[in-house]
Amino acid sequence: MLIRRGRRRWGQGGFCSSVVRKTVLIVYRMETKTSLVKKIFLKLSPPSLRDNTAEIDRLKKQIKVELGIESLAVPFAQISGWVSTLRAAGYEVTTTVAMTMPLPAVIELEAGDTTRRNFGLAVDLGTTRMAYQLWDLAQGKLLVETSSENPQTRFGADILTRIHYADHPDRLKDLQACVVSEINDTLLNLGREYHLSPREIFTMTLAGNTTMTHLFLGLSPASICREPYIPVLNTIEPLTAQDLGLNIHPRAVVSIFPNVGSYLGGDVLAGILHSRLYQQEALSMLVDVGTNAEVVFGNSEWLIGCAGAAGPALEGGVAQMGMVAGDGAIEKIRIDPETEELSYSLIGQGPPRGICGSGLIDLTAELFMAGLLDIRGKFTVKKPTDRWIKLDGQPAYVLVRAEETANHSPIVLTQVDLDILLRSKAAMYTILTTLVQSVGYSLKDIEHFFVAGAFGNHIDPRRAVILGLLPDLPLERYIPLGNTSLKGAADVLLDYRSLEGVKKIADKITYLEMNVNQDFMNRFSAARFIPHTDPNLFPSVRRDVDFL
Amino acid sequence: MLIRRGRRRWGQGGFCSSVVRKTVLIVYRMETKTSLVKKIFLKLSPPSLRDNTAEIDRLKKQIKVELGIESLAVPFAQISGWVSTLRAAGYEVTTTVAMTMPLPAVIELEAGDTTRRNFGLAVDLGTTRMAYQLWDLAQGKLLVETSSENPQTRFGADILTRIHYADHPDRLKDLQACVVSEINDTLLNLGREYHLSPREIFTMTLAGNTTMTHLFLGLSPASICREPYIPVLNTIEPLTAQDLGLNIHPRAVVSIFPNVGSYLGGDVLAGILHSRLYQQEALSMLVDVGTNAEVVFGNSEWLIGCAGAAGPALEGGVAQMGMVAGDGAIEKIRIDPETEELSYSLIGQGPPRGICGSGLIDLTAELFMAGLLDIRGKFTVKKPTDRWIKLDGQPAYVLVRAEETANHSPIVLTQVDLDILLRSKAAMYTILTTLVQSVGYSLKDIEHFFVAGAFGNHIDPRRAVILGLLPDLPLERYIPLGNTSLKGAADVLLDYRSLEGVKKIADKITYLEMNVNQDFMNRFSAARFIPHTDPNLFPSVRRDVDFL
Repeated sequence: MLIRRGRRRWGQGGFCSSVVRKTVLIVYRMETKTSLVKKIFLKLSPPSLRDNTAEIDRLKKQIKVELGIESLAVPFAQISGWVSTLRAAGYEVTTTVAMTMPLPAVIELEAGDTTRRNFGLAVDLGTTRMAYQLWDLAQGKLLVETSSENPQTRFGADILTRIHYADHPDRLKDLQACVVSEINDTLLNLGREYHLSPREIFTMTLAGNTTMTHLFLGLSPASICREPYIPVLNTIEPLTAQDLGLNIHPRAVVSIFPNVGSYLGGDVLAGILHSRLYQQEALSMLVDVGTNAEVVFGNSEWLIGCAGAAGPALEGGVAQMGMVAGDGAIEKIRIDPETEELSYSLIGQGPPRGICGSGLIDLTAELFMAGLLDIRGKFTVKKPTDRWIKLDGQPAYVLVRAEETANHSPIVLTQVDLDILLRSKAAMYTILTTLVQSVGYSLKDIEHFFVAGAFGNHIDPRRAVILGLLPDLPLERYIPLGNTSLKGAADVLLDYRSLEGVKKIADKITYLEMNVNQDFMNRFSAARFIPHTDPNLFPSVRRDVDFL
Repeated sequence: MLIRRGRRRWGQGGFCSSVVRKTVLIVYRMETKTSLVKKIFLKLSPPSLRDNTAEIDRLKKQIKVELGIESLAVPFAQISGWVSTLRAAGYEVTTTVAMTMPLPAVIELEAGDTTRRNFGLAVDLGTTRMAYQLWDLAQGKLLVETSSENPQTRFGADILTRIHYADHPDRLKDLQACVVSEINDTLLNLGREYHLSPREIFTMTLAGNTTMTHLFLGLSPASICREPYIPVLNTIEPLTAQDLGLNIHPRAVVSIFPNVGSYLGGDVLAGILHSRLYQQEALSMLVDVGTNAEVVFGNSEWLIGCAGAAGPALEGGVAQMGMVAGDGAIEKIRIDPETEELSYSLIGQGPPRGICGSGLIDLTAELFMAGLLDIRGKFTVKKPTDRWIKLDGQPAYVLVRAEETANHSPIVLTQVDLDILLRSKAAMYTILTTLVQSVGYSLKDIEHFFVAGAFGNHIDPRRAVILGLLPDLPLERYIPLGNTSLKGAADVLLDYRSLEGVKKIADKITYLEMNVNQDFMNRFSAARFIPHTDPNLFPSVRRDVDFL
């Protein structure tokens, strides 16, 4: 389990801060008044002959007044105990209310003032990793952000394997149970470390892709991968922790992001929410690169989204020496075009162990700028140095020499790695182009380009533009947002009114099925060049690279 | 268990039909479209590439369209099974929806068209008896009305004994369990007789007084009889059958009438609902005589209610030969003022066994009109016949001679019986006067006088006026309504919009605490005479009885 303490600063990663400051500022809303679960300390007037309102009615009435709400549910099974508590506590009690719509509900009633003990958990349920934010909702303070491997990977690394594995009810249950256990274990550890009982966690929000959401709910994902690709459900009503076996407060409200369709899930919805793309007049793009690449385009008027296979290579998952962005990963590379001298920087502690997605993009762009790669993405050996070796009869580029690496093998970029990377970047550019053109726009109309995920935090957008992976927009339009699935989940935790936003997004978004037809293939082929067969699409690159 | 088949005709009982026809007509609403639980047969479009809405979302969407509603809850635990049913049934299914506010909920989903199988139960949970109406909601047809003894009577005949008995959690549980069992047993019998499974009963509505409601919910009624007389709760959110252990459909919605306070319960609210008093401009009075007398006065603008001890004697429960209105009870009596000859009619089959409340009122009024009783309610023996005997040194009146009765003892009215009856009628008249005067009106302002209960069905209002029990209003203003608690419960069953009415009534009604102060005692003393110390309050009686 990787634990990062405190709040990650916005703009960390591959963007220079001067660019960052100009862009849309996204901040955590700190008013605890708006949190999804609120605690209110009440001093009720004791019963008297002058006010003969029944005990629970007096309690409900006061809560409604405090929160300005019309309806309020009270769990029937608790009434008897709560009346005893009310009386024993001299009518000074703290109530915990879940602001779920259309019917807010009382979750707990405790003697005295316990308003300071109100915690919430946001979860990003990724196919590979699960990420968590534990919040102190009373103070509006992030206590910790952490992540762990999705334990379902032991039943299959990719989604399709898991869908097939889930075909039997028992195995479907196993898939659900292991994720629930993982969350429970994580909470046990965090609880110990932060001195809180899991019962003090009164709410959890969760975002994941459509398959992950189905598995978490114990619903068969079988129909997701079969024509006509229909999920069991997209909108998910608020559940309680005990519905799901989560070891937090049994009546804690669990709010799960709805899906848009089989290939556009709650994680993307959370991203749209967090980016506020759906609230702005400006035309914006949101790209989330993971196992799949999910892309959303639109503004406050309309939203269109699609998903396509463009991801793994861009995350460093395919190249021979590729690795995810973590300790020892090379993430930034510069090559002097005159001397061909190479310098790099690492994530975390050395020695270097491999190259992550952003490093790969940097390296490829730098090789191209130094004239060591032609526009077709083939190596051009200008002068034979010890950086050039042959592997399987093809030239390969030594990025880090054997003596400098963790396992004393050189870190190498092969022609095969390059080909895969260029296919991925071509797919991405083609998806962006197709989506934008489907609604009659062109890429240059994009006013904000939100880049989600670790990918967004680490890549250098200028290098991605040079490569032709991202369109040639002014750099300040690129805004890295980090893990928007997790951050969107936290947004709901901190502001229940976001649920309205989620509903609005889900109602508004149209899913565009990417038809891999001749048009698409033509665009894809043109985009396999660096930056593109049509250099007019990349005027800034053309200006910098004289042979274009 | 007493079973009455078919619908009881309105106006059955002690009122002549010519009077009845002039009064407000109260009919059952027959549109099954408005029933609290609706079944809808849906032919959903199967999933296709053109409509990629998720299975459950498509179902919810269609239900919302059919019912014109915005929100709809689906029970999480059912989703998986329902999707299988949907697919297996080729998307032709019947959904059962509870129209509970603010959040309607899907209760069941069945393959094919089962819309004809939709039943509901209305329950009047009385302290002494429980009454039931079983409805075919698909046809808007009453199948049967029946009643049984409240099994709690074996733990105590009156409310106070039961409240004390309930002081221990185990015994509280016993009190709840025996009522639930009684309902389950009744349903089992009815189900057999009417060829329906308890699972086909998708809703139950229940009205009872505040203590009965608390016991039914398993809530301690201890605070109800102790100053400041505060119930645990008044408003009761919709529950499910499984919350309460009822053996109908586990997710059947159980709607329980709210209470107004410790001494004005859901049974009275149901009565107000059924009388429609709260919807009319005309000033109306509703009187329900049971163990207590509950009285409500008001119109569509305002409502005031109170409760007082005036009941048992008026129901025939106190007199030596008194009995409840049932087989062998004398209910109508006429005495020829000239010959002193007495004639009577019985309820059901003879021979006579006793006298019920309405018989007692008739008898007293007739004795008074024949000059055999003075205005103080003391016997006046005009000529010694075999109808006059001495008991404990006081004259007593033989109503039925020994040889004519069931047990060969004479049915006798004693001076003690008379005194108790006159105290009860004085209490009733005083409560009516006090209530009406508390809001600045007088009794003659009452435009509709609704009389609930068996009492209302059997008494002769003219005789009650002569006695000074009811105010001297034109007789057509008196409207008998029968068991309004049961009928109000059925109203909600048949029209979910009544729930709005119930809420409106509960919000609007003010409870008037009857202070037994000097004013009250003065009024009470004046009302102990026949009809009253002030004969001007009873001009029609004064006109008929020449010595007044």
